[in-house]
Amino acid sequence: MSEPTLGVVAVGNALVDVISHTTEEFLAEQKKDFDMEKGAMTLIDEYRATELYSFMGPGIETSGGSAANTMAGLASFGGKGALIAKVAEDKLGEVFQHDIRSLGLQFDTQPLAVGPATGSCLILVTPDAERTMNTYLGASSELSPNDIDKELIASAQVTYLEGYLFDREQAKQAFSVAAEAAHNAGHRVALTLSDPFCVDRHRHDFLGLVENHVDILFANEDEIKSLYMQESFDDAKSAVSDNCEIAVLTRGEKGALVVSKGKETFVESEKVEKVVDTTGAGDQLAAGFLYGFTEGMDLEKSLRLGVMAAAEVISHMGPRPEASYADFLKKAA
Amino acid sequence: MSEPTLGVVAVGNALVDVISHTTEEFLAEQKKDFDMEKGAMTLIDEYRATELYSFMGPGIETSGGSAANTMAGLASFGGKGALIAKVAEDKLGEVFQHDIRSLGLQFDTQPLAVGPATGSCLILVTPDAERTMNTYLGASSELSPNDIDKELIASAQVTYLEGYLFDREQAKQAFSVAAEAAHNAGHRVALTLSDPFCVDRHRHDFLGLVENHVDILFANEDEIKSLYMQESFDDAKSAVSDNCEIAVLTRGEKGALVVSKGKETFVESEKVEKVVDTTGAGDQLAAGFLYGFTEGMDLEKSLRLGVMAAAEVISHMGPRPEASYADFLKKAA
Repeated sequence: MSEPTLGVVAVGNALVDVISHTTEEFLAEQKKDFDMEKGAMTLIDEYRATELYSFMGPGIETSGGSAANTMAGLASFGGKGALIAKVAEDKLGEVFQHDIRSLGLQFDTQPLAVGPATGSCLILVTPDAERTMNTYLGASSELSPNDIDKELIASAQVTYLEGYLFDREQAKQAFSVAAEAAHNAGHRVALTLSDPFCVDRHRHDFLGLVENHVDILFANEDEIKSLYMQESFDDAKSAVSDNCEIAVLTRGEKGALVVSKGKETFVESEKVEKVVDTTGAGDQLAAGFLYGFTEGMDLEKSLRLGVMAAAEVISHMGPRPEASYADFLKKAA
Repeated sequence: MSEPTLGVVAVGNALVDVISHTTEEFLAEQKKDFDMEKGAMTLIDEYRATELYSFMGPGIETSGGSAANTMAGLASFGGKGALIAKVAEDKLGEVFQHDIRSLGLQFDTQPLAVGPATGSCLILVTPDAERTMNTYLGASSELSPNDIDKELIASAQVTYLEGYLFDREQAKQAFSVAAEAAHNAGHRVALTLSDPFCVDRHRHDFLGLVENHVDILFANEDEIKSLYMQESFDDAKSAVSDNCEIAVLTRGEKGALVVSKGKETFVESEKVEKVVDTTGAGDQLAAGFLYGFTEGMDLEKSLRLGVMAAAEVISHMGPRPEASYADFLKKAA
């Protein structure tokens, strides 16, 4: 077992978000003709992306991608980390690279020279602050096992994998290579289930993974219920506690809990004056937890950091920190 | 005199803003080696833009440009308008076009096929919410008299010109052509002085314009003092009241006033719970005033709409409305 120099290395999609306010009516209109689930992520092709964008209101562009958002949060806490994800050699690719590196994170995945453009996620935010995501994966889906830097993986305490990667065969293979490299180094593998529809699409694979390869699982209520096909949260919770070392389960306003070795640790939600945009809530919860955990804090304190980070990110537009999360360290102490 | 079908047509720079939080220390460090004035706009070349961007933290990208921001505000009030501004045929140009058109605004200026990229403005926001702007004009500086659609100008009650255009000779000529077309149609010309350093650079030209061609002038305290080289606001105010029909003067927290035909109308500032980013404050004040004015409201009510819009835009990141400004119409009534 080598001595880790990084807290977390994440493997995920490289996406630039285009976030736009919209109405319930617009969403209803789009749902008539297209597959689109309010609050969830739908994969779209380039043609549909162009079309949907032309119907959307003005946007703000900001680097996104679930695992990449988590790394931005980790950096804001003061953590050391790296990202493995695929952009193209274009303007949005430059923006994504700049934003990750400017946070002090390592990001050396070779950009795609020939092929699709850098991926983007068209996010529609309704007045209830819910986000409905439409992802054109683009270059991100070209992430392959060759992109997995095993030495880098071996240098991190935790390798954090994004469930959305399962939506493409090549990326799924990259996922397995990364998990194996982490375990070979004697380190932990974490997985976020990403969303209930993603779980639906890949339930069998995810169940196998959680049972055999995942040490730390992140899931919200809908995702964990979907994974074990249980109607009650408590039943799903029991099932997961038998299956992996640490499960971090979030329930929105009802708080969050960690289930580990038969013990449960609960943390209440933070009060948020005005929820503006829920994009990134789960990503930042994972950031706080992983920062605390890799810094040797106990499960409760780690979870509390996650809950604070999630509360910050939903109080403004965009999936990444505006405040410095390092300020939460004193508050949590 | 033809019957106007639009409220306002604006002529200005087409820029995509890259907004990033920064520290006073970073600004101080940059100022050692480069021309950079806190709170003001500095013109930079492509080389410097690339360099500064590489030092900056993660950004959010959003369409900007002073006059374009004003038009976004006008549209949010429910006003009809058009924009004349120059982008390139590239990704940021597409974003800028999309954002303007998606607001229902007319935007038909031919993009630049060969030459510099779409312009961008690197905006550093310090903890005091002040923004320091570094503008790479790019394609925007290629706006020429040929881009001025005289029929479009003639169709609007007010032609609104951005002072920043004076920083390039061709754009300045376009400016004059637009003003002439507006007056030939029997309509009004409005000008915003943009910033005190811009006034410094072009004082002689601006004085001639205000005296002979401008019907509605927008300026903040520093700008109007700079224009007339007066140390006191009152002296500058007296000078401008002799020179143009309507002067809209803003004083930040000290409120705003309209000086017209020897009469003064004062409106107090709105209270803002937390000032996050002052980018766009002047632009949105102009939006509110121009909307009210072109809808036939009196000067006080028009100014009040402007003050409300300015208060909204400084309460969040970015230079354009997040709330619907049409909601202010009831409040102001």
